[in-house]
Amino acid sequence: MKRIAIDMDNVIADVTTAFLDSHEQETQIRLIPDDINGKLESEAFPNVMKWVNTEGYFRNLPVMPDSQGVVKRLTEKYDVFIVSAATEFPRSLYDKMMWLEEHFPFIGWQKVCLCGSKTIVKADILIDDHFKNLDYFEGETFLFTATHNVLADNGRHRRVNSWSEIEKILL
Amino acid sequence: MKRIAIDMDNVIADVTTAFLDSHEQETQIRLIPDDINGKLESEAFPNVMKWVNTEGYFRNLPVMPDSQGVVKRLTEKYDVFIVSAATEFPRSLYDKMMWLEEHFPFIGWQKVCLCGSKTIVKADILIDDHFKNLDYFEGETFLFTATHNVLADNGRHRRVNSWSEIEKILL
Repeated sequence: MKRIAIDMDNVIADVTTAFLDSHEQETQIRLIPDDINGKLESEAFPNVMKWVNTEGYFRNLPVMPDSQGVVKRLTEKYDVFIVSAATEFPRSLYDKMMWLEEHFPFIGWQKVCLCGSKTIVKADILIDDHFKNLDYFEGETFLFTATHNVLADNGRHRRVNSWSEIEKILL
Repeated sequence: MKRIAIDMDNVIADVTTAFLDSHEQETQIRLIPDDINGKLESEAFPNVMKWVNTEGYFRNLPVMPDSQGVVKRLTEKYDVFIVSAATEFPRSLYDKMMWLEEHFPFIGWQKVCLCGSKTIVKADILIDDHFKNLDYFEGETFLFTATHNVLADNGRHRRVNSWSEIEKILL
């Protein structure tokens, strides 16, 4: 059974929408995704480091469209792990476990990996929104479209724009 | 550079001493390690699940003798990751990061992996006290002696009793 490692933020958890909401709350300016295309999160959201270090921030993120159903179906054919580069933000760790328990209850704690560098991950397939994770992965790679990567392409990863697209490829 | 994955509990963090202390506080009976040799932690300590789910419990564990110096020297010759099967206890995650920051500041968050199953870990060497982790690891394995494993041996892993012993082998 092939193993798929699936990232959390911007892949199954819609952290960009949360950032847009927080930005609006603090500045009264509602940005739309097009406003921040191609920008690093730290460029797009000057206060992002404060938010991600706040207890509870990752507990209430919206779920990415179709991710629950497709990931559930993937678990029937693949050994699915959720792998999040989260140790940089220790306050996020508990929240991420509770969020997964609520929205992806079919993924048990056994299949979660919260790490710093994803070079430690042994899997066959990686679905992620960051080149820094995908570029060092030896297996098959899928670049999940996010505002920060939408204008970039190094030609090394297959871009996917939605979970229904992943479903068509992998199921 | 070879990668070493090093477990936390009973390898660099002396959780057994903490369990003996907690047991004494609750029962007024001081056990010594010999009393619990060969016993699973859940057999030796009926209240262990309560303790490990308590916020702060993993924050104040004693450090295993010589582990800081030897691990520091290992980082000069190896790519060292700290890998803890901790997602079963979400309350422990933040505490473990803070404990590492205090006692192993030379290990950054980049080199920490908090997981459920260690089958996800890609490394060359694993130092761990549990057969359930060592038996499924494809590289070189070291069984770090702990009360629960001291009477068991499946002949598949090299037993080490201390960090100075590891230093002699790996450095």
